[in-house]
Amino acid sequence: MKNIVILGASGYTGAELVRLLAGHPEIRISALGADRKAGMAYGDVFPHLRHLDLPILRTIEEIDFSPVDLVFCALPHATSQRVIKALPPHIKIVDLSADFRLRDVDEYAKWYGGPHAALELQKTAVYGLTEFYREDIKSARLVAGTGCNAAAGLLPVLPLLKAGLIDPEEIIIDLLTGASGAGRGAKEGMLHAEVSEGAHAYAIASHRHLGEFDQEFSKMAGREVRVSFTPHLLPQNRGILATIYVRGEAEALHAALAAQYKNEPFIYVLPFGQAPATRHVRGSNYCHIGVAADRRDGRAIVFSALDNLTKGSSGQALQNANIMLGLDEQLGLEMVPLFP
Amino acid sequence: MKNIVILGASGYTGAELVRLLAGHPEIRISALGADRKAGMAYGDVFPHLRHLDLPILRTIEEIDFSPVDLVFCALPHATSQRVIKALPPHIKIVDLSADFRLRDVDEYAKWYGGPHAALELQKTAVYGLTEFYREDIKSARLVAGTGCNAAAGLLPVLPLLKAGLIDPEEIIIDLLTGASGAGRGAKEGMLHAEVSEGAHAYAIASHRHLGEFDQEFSKMAGREVRVSFTPHLLPQNRGILATIYVRGEAEALHAALAAQYKNEPFIYVLPFGQAPATRHVRGSNYCHIGVAADRRDGRAIVFSALDNLTKGSSGQALQNANIMLGLDEQLGLEMVPLFP
Amino acid sequence: MKNIVILGASGYTGAELVRLLAGHPEIRISALGADRKAGMAYGDVFPHLRHLDLPILRTIEEIDFSPVDLVFCALPHATSQRVIKALPPHIKIVDLSADFRLRDVDEYAKWYGGPHAALELQKTAVYGLTEFYREDIKSARLVAGTGCNAAAGLLPVLPLLKAGLIDPEEIIIDLLTGASGAGRGAKEGMLHAEVSEGAHAYAIASHRHLGEFDQEFSKMAGREVRVSFTPHLLPQNRGILATIYVRGEAEALHAALAAQYKNEPFIYVLPFGQAPATRHVRGSNYCHIGVAADRRDGRAIVFSALDNLTKGSSGQALQNANIMLGLDEQLGLEMVPLFP
Amino acid sequence: MKNIVILGASGYTGAELVRLLAGHPEIRISALGADRKAGMAYGDVFPHLRHLDLPILRTIEEIDFSPVDLVFCALPHATSQRVIKALPPHIKIVDLSADFRLRDVDEYAKWYGGPHAALELQKTAVYGLTEFYREDIKSARLVAGTGCNAAAGLLPVLPLLKAGLIDPEEIIIDLLTGASGAGRGAKEGMLHAEVSEGAHAYAIASHRHLGEFDQEFSKMAGREVRVSFTPHLLPQNRGILATIYVRGEAEALHAALAAQYKNEPFIYVLPFGQAPATRHVRGSNYCHIGVAADRRDGRAIVFSALDNLTKGSSGQALQNANIMLGLDEQLGLEMVPLFP
Repeated sequence: MKNIVILGASGYTGAELVRLLAGHPEIRISALGADRKAGMAYGDVFPHLRHLDLPILRTIEEIDFSPVDLVFCALPHATSQRVIKALPPHIKIVDLSADFRLRDVDEYAKWYGGPHAALELQKTAVYGLTEFYREDIKSARLVAGTGCNAAAGLLPVLPLLKAGLIDPEEIIIDLLTGASGAGRGAKEGMLHAEVSEGAHAYAIASHRHLGEFDQEFSKMAGREVRVSFTPHLLPQNRGILATIYVRGEAEALHAALAAQYKNEPFIYVLPFGQAPATRHVRGSNYCHIGVAADRRDGRAIVFSALDNLTKGSSGQALQNANIMLGLDEQLGLEMVPLFP
Repeated sequence: MKNIVILGASGYTGAELVRLLAGHPEIRISALGADRKAGMAYGDVFPHLRHLDLPILRTIEEIDFSPVDLVFCALPHATSQRVIKALPPHIKIVDLSADFRLRDVDEYAKWYGGPHAALELQKTAVYGLTEFYREDIKSARLVAGTGCNAAAGLLPVLPLLKAGLIDPEEIIIDLLTGASGAGRGAKEGMLHAEVSEGAHAYAIASHRHLGEFDQEFSKMAGREVRVSFTPHLLPQNRGILATIYVRGEAEALHAALAAQYKNEPFIYVLPFGQAPATRHVRGSNYCHIGVAADRRDGRAIVFSALDNLTKGSSGQALQNANIMLGLDEQLGLEMVPLFP
Repeated sequence: MKNIVILGASGYTGAELVRLLAGHPEIRISALGADRKAGMAYGDVFPHLRHLDLPILRTIEEIDFSPVDLVFCALPHATSQRVIKALPPHIKIVDLSADFRLRDVDEYAKWYGGPHAALELQKTAVYGLTEFYREDIKSARLVAGTGCNAAAGLLPVLPLLKAGLIDPEEIIIDLLTGASGAGRGAKEGMLHAEVSEGAHAYAIASHRHLGEFDQEFSKMAGREVRVSFTPHLLPQNRGILATIYVRGEAEALHAALAAQYKNEPFIYVLPFGQAPATRHVRGSNYCHIGVAADRRDGRAIVFSALDNLTKGSSGQALQNANIMLGLDEQLGLEMVPLFP
Repeated sequence: MKNIVILGASGYTGAELVRLLAGHPEIRISALGADRKAGMAYGDVFPHLRHLDLPILRTIEEIDFSPVDLVFCALPHATSQRVIKALPPHIKIVDLSADFRLRDVDEYAKWYGGPHAALELQKTAVYGLTEFYREDIKSARLVAGTGCNAAAGLLPVLPLLKAGLIDPEEIIIDLLTGASGAGRGAKEGMLHAEVSEGAHAYAIASHRHLGEFDQEFSKMAGREVRVSFTPHLLPQNRGILATIYVRGEAEALHAALAAQYKNEPFIYVLPFGQAPATRHVRGSNYCHIGVAADRRDGRAIVFSALDNLTKGSSGQALQNANIMLGLDEQLGLEMVPLFP
């Protein structure tokens, strides 16, 4: 039995980790960290988890890390790097913040608005896109979970760049995302009265996950790749749907994706021409990918759908933690999607 | 042409007033007041109103009240009483806060947690339930808009108490309300991710609108009346549905309500046995009332539906302002409900 | 390993059974029955289940019942009784329809509009409210699942009648229910454009689940009990919230409920004064119960929340099936609620 | 005072016409046509309109067309052409179906699956995109309302093709649409339980509104233009958001759109870099257009938002009818958007 701690447990990704770990046979939660809500029973913060026998929330200072094997760090970026730097060296870490995703410190400063405070650690971090970094993750001490939008864009596009089947200069990622991705912080723009019954684009040509797209796409293509990326907020809680416009032969793209993912437990490539729906992956660790021909010759449309809190963050984090701890990668992650 | 000012224009009730006044032929908005957002163009605060030619937001201190006929005060309670006390005496006021609703200063202190700062004004204020105080409103300087939940409970029940048709000791008001009633302030509990796909009761046996129920029901019945009242939050933005359980003969209740409201422009009593729906009054100043027999003899169920931002607050406020200004009561209020 | 069949697998309760059974270690789905959709792959009917290895849909005639231990029958009422009557005698049955819930054939005819076609079977059926009929269920061949609304009303009220703590003449059950309870059949009134952003009462004083309330409450009280019951449709997919107004001492009611359910795995009585929320049980087999004092002396408000597709139908069905098959009652049912 | 008839009044576009006409000072509804619901009071079909004094629904055969100036035909395609062909010649017609949108009979047959039954009429019909066909509409007998998605794509793109500012070979229209666009017919896929909390693409590379895009874009560009178009269904009732990826200089595009629409009463071009939201046009006849630079040089993203039932169909229809009847184009259309 492995002992883990969740820091930043009072947010949605923290609660999602607790949900997943409740069904995990080999991992025990030894502490739950929070700052503002320290001292509270977890079931008072998240009443849907009230039936679980969980430790009360503690500040980081109050937590005994000595018996701990791994920490999930679900803190805000900038805070995360400071906290992780101070963790005892025997502890493995899965960080769900943005702090260790970008290899290039200048890119980090550009997208996140300040210098990095844990440069040495940043160099050693492994990018948490399991399907592409599984071997590195096995031996990593620190794995940086991907952005949820980044995961939705990378999973369907990376195999196509790898196979050289699409024009890297013409990739447009149009993305729909739900409200839980913005976290549990109280913001006017995320109120029910503001979000429901409407849709709009945000962070046009400037979303921070572009840093991850640039890094991973360029690395895979062996040249600089700059995609266009437009996220939209829509009135659903969980779910990201990426609609990706590319130049390439649709059937070849489909074949490449099917081949790439045929043995992956959580990636499901739909029959050619079918499009995924966020409601069909809700609450699960699955990513559904679809490919259709555009009506313009030589163009294709690639879709992916995943749950931002599961495969997009906490599910991915647990998948990586399982690997880091030498456990079966799928433990705790075999929930069926919840529909309707 | 009358000149009005809206104070607290950066909230939902303020925006609703602007929406209604945009179609009003006899009223001109001479200033829009806000505090934190002073200096902003109104269309930047509420982009759905960007096509209107509106003054920019100003602090109260910046507003010239000399040409102003009437002020709509949509400020938080406690703030409202201080601001209204300082307004020039020539100005009529419709207050949308809770500050002047309760006649009894002890009741005010009990429900709102502190002493009242404008006791003289409080004595002169008229309760803004138009259908019952129309004559007093005509000559009032200060009208206190009702609570939105209070309106939904008072309109169907007051005529029944007036007619002596129900047992005043057995009134249960079960109420469903939408998210906009909580205002535009950023609160964790009002996030889309918290409110959507769920329902729960809140403020059980302790909601502040009970003060209004107690005052108005007791006055009408000529004895102390204490109702049971349980509001629930549900995932809709606009709309209150009250389901009211009473002891009385259903058909007699229906007849009394139909008689009471037969000449009211905004109250619509449905055929016996039919129940109203919030979606059928959305965006309008209508209140739909229905009556059905309970399956237990001598019991009835009375329903009302209204839009909390319109008939429940800003529409009611404009209806009262029209009366106070000697205008046609229905001006600016004849919008058809928006469905779907 | 036990073999089961789901008849009526193309509806929401069928899909919910498949979701639950996917994580069940002792039960194998040997056939899935449907009529109109026979021949289709299950993943084409419910794409959220496409990753599961499931039999294709078959008509009842095509299914080999010889190796089958238990049938879940999720067919419409009236159809259900005819199908169940024809099943081989070695098969146990959990029926999710209304056909075998009412002991009194006249009551059945009254609420369901026609004579019963399987009178002999009806006499032997056990009512599927697990917490009250567990011993009978153990040896039953046919268990009749409760109505989802009925479950939400019975679980919090039966212990109070049993203890004689409330006045059986003054029970009002006000209930909020989501859209999935109406099933997957295409109906104008259940379209997204009709249901979202609104709420209304339906089946006032005439809902069919009244038959179950009458039967179970009267039996428990030892006298005829007729409750008032008003369901409302609101824009959520899963979840029932019952708000129940009773005459009785709130703290005593709370104590009785806590005592009744202290060893029940799926019933959770909240601390006194707290109210449950449907979003906190979504996707799970839990029922949360709360009790608060009314402001009127000697009155109390009792709340319950459950997921209509899980504890209200398919989860309850599996719980009963586990008991009937001699398995651990909780197998396949320990999913944590999904929030947000 | 002009007399109009609405055929197909039992659908959402019919009800929207009634809503708009309720506030129109120069138009009177002389009959409301329906087939299946003939004989019903309109308030029973659409209870949100119950306070209006409206004729009961009639079959077409029962309607006296002699005093009628104009017919709004909101019937399904194929039906529409047969009905319109039989109308008396003195009557002007605004058709909201797809029947008269396409000039090329082969294109009609290709997209709508059968030959056209009113070829002579089809030749004389004017395409109802008011901002581009206003002069033709003035003297037209028959105006063919645009598809709602088509309007959302044409309004922002046509001026750019007209000005030669974008590459006609690289236009990608990604579109989000709400549930009311599918009409009031009962379909499994449009149930609340199916649509809410999810998003998916549909009609990929095959949506019928492509016929309109091809026709209008090619005509404007003076060469064959084939755009890529992917609509998505999302959980909102009203609203279309188009996100359009083009090759061109963003600031020049913005200037061209601002110039094109500076005198249009219902088209509002946002400041450069801002994106519209469907919630900000809900219930109104406005179309908001925005332009932002892509991060890739020489690329831009153009957005438009409109309400599919208003500017996308019934509002556009009334705007055209006003022109055809010699009335002020804006009559009945100056409703402020409803938010929240």
